[in-house]
Amino acid sequence: MHQPIQQVAVTGGTHGNEITGIHLLQYWQAYPAGITRDSFNTELHLANPRAHKRMRRYVDQDLNRQFSLADLRNPDLTGYEHSRAKILDAQLGPKEDPRVDFVIDLHTTTANMGLTLVIRELSPLLLDLVFYIKQQLPKTVLFYEPIDRLEDPFLTSLGRSNGLLIEVGPSPQGVLRADAFALTQQATEHALTFLQWRNEGRAVSLPNALPAFEFVENRHYPLNAEGQRWGMVHPQAQDADYAPVVNGDPLFLTFDGDVVVYEGPETRYLSFVNEAAYYPSNVGLQLMRKFELNRRP
Amino acid sequence: MHQPIQQVAVTGGTHGNEITGIHLLQYWQAYPAGITRDSFNTELHLANPRAHKRMRRYVDQDLNRQFSLADLRNPDLTGYEHSRAKILDAQLGPKEDPRVDFVIDLHTTTANMGLTLVIRELSPLLLDLVFYIKQQLPKTVLFYEPIDRLEDPFLTSLGRSNGLLIEVGPSPQGVLRADAFALTQQATEHALTFLQWRNEGRAVSLPNALPAFEFVENRHYPLNAEGQRWGMVHPQAQDADYAPVVNGDPLFLTFDGDVVVYEGPETRYLSFVNEAAYYPSNVGLQLMRKFELNRRP
Repeated sequence: MHQPIQQVAVTGGTHGNEITGIHLLQYWQAYPAGITRDSFNTELHLANPRAHKRMRRYVDQDLNRQFSLADLRNPDLTGYEHSRAKILDAQLGPKEDPRVDFVIDLHTTTANMGLTLVIRELSPLLLDLVFYIKQQLPKTVLFYEPIDRLEDPFLTSLGRSNGLLIEVGPSPQGVLRADAFALTQQATEHALTFLQWRNEGRAVSLPNALPAFEFVENRHYPLNAEGQRWGMVHPQAQDADYAPVVNGDPLFLTFDGDVVVYEGPETRYLSFVNEAAYYPSNVGLQLMRKFELNRRP
Repeated sequence: MHQPIQQVAVTGGTHGNEITGIHLLQYWQAYPAGITRDSFNTELHLANPRAHKRMRRYVDQDLNRQFSLADLRNPDLTGYEHSRAKILDAQLGPKEDPRVDFVIDLHTTTANMGLTLVIRELSPLLLDLVFYIKQQLPKTVLFYEPIDRLEDPFLTSLGRSNGLLIEVGPSPQGVLRADAFALTQQATEHALTFLQWRNEGRAVSLPNALPAFEFVENRHYPLNAEGQRWGMVHPQAQDADYAPVVNGDPLFLTFDGDVVVYEGPETRYLSFVNEAAYYPSNVGLQLMRKFELNRRP
């Protein structure tokens, strides 16, 4: 028998200008039926209220990079988001032995990534959960970035089991689209339903394997001799998240008219293409590998 | 014979997070052929550098509302954008008797408005110019918001003739898309070519009338009893800029599941649907009337 899930935290506004999750929190506060399940308690947290008030991703530093155990226990980290991370750790954690069993963190992206479920470990709980959501919403993409939970800087790592980051796009920052709202709501409520059934011990028939994507590397915008951004995502790559690229396929177009292509023997797949939040680091897109994700590796 | 155009200013980054125009300025600085014409000089201006550095629309107040003659001459207006407006007035104006003949100001919108040419008066010069651009780029939309040039708070009003605001969407804030870049570049360069031909006295065959849209009213997001935004653009209206709405057509969907419809006897047309920049004022979309714009009224 599984350890039952008793406390689930749904967090929104970890990035203050990704307002879809924030409005969903308001909606569920008014209409809690969608997140209420018999066997556990669901709590709602606005993660970065000051950044949201300023309609920015963050005030001092990206909140969703502040949750490694080392950083949470580092008293010298005193920026606004450092403090928010410590407060959330006190409320949901402590990370070494958390009060909350599972965190679902709600994000949007300007990239054309549809409903993407980001998972950071391959626990049976998390695998069954994302397989279940993909069964309900077949266009769902499974996005894997492995990291040890205690080292993981993401908010989703605060729960007893490493949790689920729901990423929906395309949505501009600071905008609420009805389609992104509905998709985020559906994915979250399916996740909670799965956790309820798991607590009940109900048999859920799931596939044994599904396609998934794993992060390989970032690709940066072209720069000029002065180090300024000097180009853009190539029109063929724009909005082409999860499309394959092979040797010679265009990635970027410089302001000089030159095409920067993908070079390599392996087929790669695009993600986070032209994500607004990655401009400060000049990351223009990510390259992923596609693999068969087995539910019981 | 026309008064010749001698000085044209192309301005970008009037809103600091609409980066398409800013990157076009950098491009034209490196490759001036696209904006060089025999009969006049073209100058490039980054309008709001501090807002761009912070990747925000503005620092203290919306720069593109600060160019009425009364505000330019008001010494009590001392915010950052008030000062930028006065500096631009000194560089391009003075507004009462400007050095620059014509201003082309480059914008993007998160709304699905394609290439929209915003004009604020119906001078023969401006009408011929936008008719010429629409002849070259047939999907262009003509968007009319009449206002006297000296009262006009837009940067485009700083020139001797009221100028052209180029609005391209959809583009998230803080993002450069190759399609928006190309469309903005084409529209600007066509405008400059038209001004060259006008100076030459070259005969250009243009239609006598074209469809256009005139602003009628703003519609606001639904609010709850506490005055909070409590809903979103209805899925049928989302991305439907310039589509007609008639009595009973949905505009908004509240978080209670209620549909807010358009009520009125006249057909209206949508614009600026779900524009990120209008969230602080809760403007969710604009209603326009469609009319036949005669080139010689």
